[in-house]
Amino acid sequence: MADTNKLNKNIQNGPSIILVAPQLPENIGMTARAMANFGLIDLRIVNPKEIFPCSKSISAAAKATSIIEQAKIYNSIEDALQDLTFVYATTARARYSHKTIVAPHIAMQQTNNFIVNNKKVGIMFGRERVGLFNTELSLADELITFPVNPAFASLNLAQAVLLIGYEWMRATIYKTDEPIFKPRVMETAQKNSLFNLFVQLEKALDLRGYFRPIERKEIMINNLRDVLTRATFTEPEIRLLRGVITSLEKFKPKC
Amino acid sequence: MADTNKLNKNIQNGPSIILVAPQLPENIGMTARAMANFGLIDLRIVNPKEIFPCSKSISAAAKATSIIEQAKIYNSIEDALQDLTFVYATTARARYSHKTIVAPHIAMQQTNNFIVNNKKVGIMFGRERVGLFNTELSLADELITFPVNPAFASLNLAQAVLLIGYEWMRATIYKTDEPIFKPRVMETAQKNSLFNLFVQLEKALDLRGYFRPIERKEIMINNLRDVLTRATFTEPEIRLLRGVITSLEKFKPKC
Repeated sequence: MADTNKLNKNIQNGPSIILVAPQLPENIGMTARAMANFGLIDLRIVNPKEIFPCSKSISAAAKATSIIEQAKIYNSIEDALQDLTFVYATTARARYSHKTIVAPHIAMQQTNNFIVNNKKVGIMFGRERVGLFNTELSLADELITFPVNPAFASLNLAQAVLLIGYEWMRATIYKTDEPIFKPRVMETAQKNSLFNLFVQLEKALDLRGYFRPIERKEIMINNLRDVLTRATFTEPEIRLLRGVITSLEKFKPKC
Repeated sequence: MADTNKLNKNIQNGPSIILVAPQLPENIGMTARAMANFGLIDLRIVNPKEIFPCSKSISAAAKATSIIEQAKIYNSIEDALQDLTFVYATTARARYSHKTIVAPHIAMQQTNNFIVNNKKVGIMFGRERVGLFNTELSLADELITFPVNPAFASLNLAQAVLLIGYEWMRATIYKTDEPIFKPRVMETAQKNSLFNLFVQLEKALDLRGYFRPIERKEIMINNLRDVLTRATFTEPEIRLLRGVITSLEKFKPKC
């Protein structure tokens, strides 16, 4: 399960999402929703094309309306970035080659480094169709590009934010590369249970002439035991299998 | 940056995306679009709620129509999984605790390992609102959950597919900075072999009245399938087990 302490920390301290001149209010709502999935709360909007907030943003945000309500509106990118220490700009193409270009996961690992040192980080996303202009990209410290199939690159605004949110969550709540969701540890049964299963099964098979020719009996038994050993069955699994064998041993009912 | 050779290989070999009883055609289209971003092409749809393909799927797919056109439709999950060797099921909650639960990135690293060994892998996604039923989850080898904020978990179908596609791309094109995990040495059988074992065993047990009381039959079948799935049997092991069942089915000789 997720580490709730780390999660709470994320929710207070995650990077800011900065939308530059978004065109459709629905996309702002869907961005808020993508953010909420990963505990991001600080949404900043620079020069939205339509009046904000509006009903379209709110309905697209679903339950993430608090992000919309607390979103801040700015007249310039410079204003929106004032209190930040490090800023990334997302871009579909690596067209702006003077700056370092990083993958989303590297960016979010770096972001986490800043944030644990009490520095604020922001990620800028451009207009739906045309992205960020070079003047705007020039305000960023580094650029982020997404690893998409160049033959079909059609991430929309909310999807790009979703991937950033996901990488933020991933960078902060997983210890190294382990899954946070730990499976229930399967307790392999003790050997005596397994051996009792062998005895029951082999006896039933012997009665039915399974081990033929007789010279191969030992090899056949070894094969059978290999298969059942490799499966590393638990106690409940062995009980289930023993019940299955008992049932199979019964005569077929007359049909 | 992306390695184009690896990318081309991905596009041919990525995991199959299996949608189980999707309700809205638009979501199938958006799923195709999410897939196309990351070079996934094999879409399988089990019992779509509405006639497929339809104009809504196609328009939502944007430029990803070839995925929609090549999508295969199945009447049962078992049919959809026949040629696969390893199957993941995605689930919002870790409610089904008998199986190993992995994070998306671990699943896609494992998937890559299977695929470089020429084994096919699939990822099942459930219905938009209610996900996969336990009987359906029982057919999966492992479960995937997404690391979302538990206070606001609202990933939609296409977003879940997007994250899987992203992790697939990430697992294959970035030079991994991580040691990760050990590959499986045993060659797990294809699902059709395992399913045939299920059929044979369940039929034999049914004849003998194993599944009683009848209300528990579904749970009992799920448990049985869980045990047999978790063991990740190879083809020779499954052949051996089928021979064992055939033998056990015989009448006891008179003593």
